[in-house]
Amino acid sequence: MQHKRFAAMPCPIARGLDRVGEWWSILILRDAFAGATRFDAFQKNLGIAPGMLTRRLNALVDSGLLEKQRYSEKPPRDAYVLTERGRDFRPVLLAMMAWGNRHFAADGIRVQMVEAATGVPADPVLVDRRTGRVLVEPDYVVMRGMQA
Amino acid sequence: MQHKRFAAMPCPIARGLDRVGEWWSILILRDAFAGATRFDAFQKNLGIAPGMLTRRLNALVDSGLLEKQRYSEKPPRDAYVLTERGRDFRPVLLAMMAWGNRHFAADGIRVQMVEAATGVPADPVLVDRRTGRVLVEPDYVVMRGMQA
Repeated sequence: MQHKRFAAMPCPIARGLDRVGEWWSILILRDAFAGATRFDAFQKNLGIAPGMLTRRLNALVDSGLLEKQRYSEKPPRDAYVLTERGRDFRPVLLAMMAWGNRHFAADGIRVQMVEAATGVPADPVLVDRRTGRVLVEPDYVVMRGMQA
Repeated sequence: MQHKRFAAMPCPIARGLDRVGEWWSILILRDAFAGATRFDAFQKNLGIAPGMLTRRLNALVDSGLLEKQRYSEKPPRDAYVLTERGRDFRPVLLAMMAWGNRHFAADGIRVQMVEAATGVPADPVLVDRRTGRVLVEPDYVVMRGMQA
């Protein structure tokens, strides 16, 4: 119920949270980026109850982050594939991964981005594509106010 | 309860989600970055029930994202200030803001990062600090496996 209120907020973070739904949805998206498309694969990876998984997948389809692709008619089976909107969520996940690794991996880093050619771990940082500069104050600030 | 399970997962995204707690926590962090420190300010911005706000603030303190700073003895009042771990969550919020603006702002963009000197909106992109290259496949891949 509270999520309905988030959608009504003008803030893009609140609206984004509303569409993602809840934590399971973020882990479903994580597994989709790792190549999962089928119900069974998501269920095995996540250890989530089937009813909950069905609801979360349908919610992600309704929000336009996943789309169904039928891969079997008998029995009817759908794959769940990332849309452009879903793929565009990847930087949020990568930023969350980097933060989790920095702060909650005292027992060692298990998953991280690396440069494919060298295997050197990436140090993810958010920059302005136009200038290449890091998005930190005072160079960059959050601006409020309606813009078309 | 499900959050306890997230903490036990090796994935840094799951662990990060576990520490942030739930959606309200993310909006509390958003307001903390915007300068809010006092209970009344968070409550006014968020329209959240006082009991819920107290629980969320305490959870963020327990997870090390906020710290209490007493600013009044009579009556006893604490400000909630971002720690280093909390400030380090900012790229996650900025990536979420950019995603929300791209996909859920059909009625216009209300909040965004801009270059302070020029007012030109930023185009946030996640790069490797070392190489300056965008973190996308095939240049960069997610590597699994234990690392110290």
